[in-house]
Amino acid sequence: MPESGSTAHETGRRLGRVDSFSDGLFAIAATLLALSIDIPDVPESELNGALDSLFPSVLAYFISFAVVGLFWLRHHEFFGRLQASDSRLAAINLVFLSFVALLPVPTEILGRYDNSPAPVVIYAVFILVLSGLLRALFDHARRADLLAPGQHVPVDNAGALGVLTAFGLSIPLAYVSPDLGMYCWILAGVLPPLLRRMGVGDRSVRPEA
Amino acid sequence: MPESGSTAHETGRRLGRVDSFSDGLFAIAATLLALSIDIPDVPESELNGALDSLFPSVLAYFISFAVVGLFWLRHHEFFGRLQASDSRLAAINLVFLSFVALLPVPTEILGRYDNSPAPVVIYAVFILVLSGLLRALFDHARRADLLAPGQHVPVDNAGALGVLTAFGLSIPLAYVSPDLGMYCWILAGVLPPLLRRMGVGDRSVRPEA
Amino acid sequence: MPESGSTAHETGRRLGRVDSFSDGLFAIAATLLALSIDIPDVPESELNGALDSLFPSVLAYFISFAVVGLFWLRHHEFFGRLQASDSRLAAINLVFLSFVALLPVPTEILGRYDNSPAPVVIYAVFILVLSGLLRALFDHARRADLLAPGQHVPVDNAGALGVLTAFGLSIPLAYVSPDLGMYCWILAGVLPPLLRRMGVGDRSVRPEA
Amino acid sequence: MPESGSTAHETGRRLGRVDSFSDGLFAIAATLLALSIDIPDVPESELNGALDSLFPSVLAYFISFAVVGLFWLRHHEFFGRLQASDSRLAAINLVFLSFVALLPVPTEILGRYDNSPAPVVIYAVFILVLSGLLRALFDHARRADLLAPGQHVPVDNAGALGVLTAFGLSIPLAYVSPDLGMYCWILAGVLPPLLRRMGVGDRSVRPEA
Repeated sequence: MPESGSTAHETGRRLGRVDSFSDGLFAIAATLLALSIDIPDVPESELNGALDSLFPSVLAYFISFAVVGLFWLRHHEFFGRLQASDSRLAAINLVFLSFVALLPVPTEILGRYDNSPAPVVIYAVFILVLSGLLRALFDHARRADLLAPGQHVPVDNAGALGVLTAFGLSIPLAYVSPDLGMYCWILAGVLPPLLRRMGVGDRSVRPEA
Repeated sequence: MPESGSTAHETGRRLGRVDSFSDGLFAIAATLLALSIDIPDVPESELNGALDSLFPSVLAYFISFAVVGLFWLRHHEFFGRLQASDSRLAAINLVFLSFVALLPVPTEILGRYDNSPAPVVIYAVFILVLSGLLRALFDHARRADLLAPGQHVPVDNAGALGVLTAFGLSIPLAYVSPDLGMYCWILAGVLPPLLRRMGVGDRSVRPEA
Repeated sequence: MPESGSTAHETGRRLGRVDSFSDGLFAIAATLLALSIDIPDVPESELNGALDSLFPSVLAYFISFAVVGLFWLRHHEFFGRLQASDSRLAAINLVFLSFVALLPVPTEILGRYDNSPAPVVIYAVFILVLSGLLRALFDHARRADLLAPGQHVPVDNAGALGVLTAFGLSIPLAYVSPDLGMYCWILAGVLPPLLRRMGVGDRSVRPEA
Repeated sequence: MPESGSTAHETGRRLGRVDSFSDGLFAIAATLLALSIDIPDVPESELNGALDSLFPSVLAYFISFAVVGLFWLRHHEFFGRLQASDSRLAAINLVFLSFVALLPVPTEILGRYDNSPAPVVIYAVFILVLSGLLRALFDHARRADLLAPGQHVPVDNAGALGVLTAFGLSIPLAYVSPDLGMYCWILAGVLPPLLRRMGVGDRSVRPEA
């Protein structure tokens, strides 16, 4: 899909479209997470025990809701700074969105099986893939000069390092203990403020740099 | 996510975004409620009995649809009066939305198990949490001076007192009889007009007060 | 929720909101209909027979998709002609939307049980309720003078008579034969053009009439 | 629904509506595809094997996500070039959207049964129907002169020929081997660039031609 010949107006309209398609998809993916909680079908006498056993699913729901919310925020901030798009950006974005929409699957696996390393590993790999694809969007926009004048990609090195450490480390830890692997994810919230205080800051990379 | 350096225009755009994400989520959550009604898989000769047994699920659906509709109305009214946002407001809003999106779960539990107190208690706690989070949004906006000039938070004391009484009271009553607990929710519709006539009005709290 | 004191601008904004909430809900309800088709879980050797048995569900899907599409068109046309809203209109609209969002349920029942009158009767009653609520919206807007100047409610007497005859007649016919009841629905598409040619036209009722 | 008497402004508004309904539906259909992946309910000791068996479903998910994304792009590009609508265009569009929203069904069948020709055949027929309906939208807009001045329908002969060959050929091949049929779909991505280099180009058909 060559972009040559398309006017600036057309590019603006196309950006708006991609943006609204993306936003809708994030909102739907967040809401569909609730379907990953399977209400058990038991006799009423066993209801209380069955409800207790929902706890891991509910926890997985809230983790994934926060993930969708935070990725949506970063994604939307980024698209607000673009002045143009190209077919490569559209392709990376589509792959990124396909992983966002797939998030209910690792969420349901994580909530249903809480004594095996596989769900923790799958979930962590998922988050790393999402982070990598978002970074690929940022990098392409910078290299292809798609940002609006004076705008910069909101690179958050401390945040990225926190996610990388927390989810990367949780993969080997999950084989020691699945619970330990999940506790490790807390680092994604704890590390970034510490790193920022240590000087690993939000150095924004400007296109003219 | 420091807000310093962002222009008024950027703040406006960010508000618009949060708003459209929230609206989409409310509409999806309302529609997903229909999935909490499980169509039974029975031989056709037993169909009529099976359809009769759907009644509690259908009732729970309509209750939750009204809940989503009314919270959406209040939430949207509130966001229409803001002139700025901050990261704390965004965080409270995300937690609020995560409970809105989760509503199909207590709805399905309430519809499927109609002889136990637990579903009534879970549902009532859910509504109280939603009300508390909405009030937390209001309070933060007032304290952090995020309202547009001349706007006031639409505090509805009579309505809030009605919800608090109806759902708070239903929790102990559910242990006497689950049905009694649910009947108690009718107070949320009956009490506010009575309270308003008694002078517990819609006293709006203005930011300059 | 008294409307007194709200400016024309506020009313306009409130209308826009209701409109976008409604539109989102229609699109989601239409898409969720696909979930009413349950893919059977059989050994691969019995797959072809199992796929054949999906036919009633697929037919029910297309019928309901057309229903949602046509009601959306009428609903949206109507909201485009309003210049104001009031709390009664909002309440009728919410009840109307709660039935739109519930449509996947009678659709799934209709697709799964094809030898009993109950699913046909439930579905027909559903369509009659939806038509009645849409007419209630129209009537209230006319009586409360909510239409924009020069606008009229798009009353379609031939269409309404067609729906009333087709779905009303299908209820007794379903007890003779469920299939006969469903065939009767074809009248909803066949009757209106005939009635229009006979002079039962699209006489629009203007507010000033 | 006669269009006579409607002003250009009304036509514009109606187009905007159809457009936003369509966009919402595409985003929801894309996200619902994740529900076609059924998380198995097995003892934790058999989890790894059960997760391996999810591979065909995950593959089917990504194929369908790409299909929805690409059809959305073409559909949206087309609607951006219209200056008017008529009831026939609305009808074709509704049928087209009903097939988009139904895509989770052939996707789930394709992912669950991987040793039979039927799922491959059903999926291929589905894609051919979608392509045919999109072409019908294009043809009607050109014939009924609905395009904005200077705009042309984005006819992509190479792409259409690629889809036709890949999915058309896969139907007989699926009876030789279901896997071979699916491999054949790769041609839809490989053929178009080759055809373009051979001169079967993106000759756009202008309305004035």
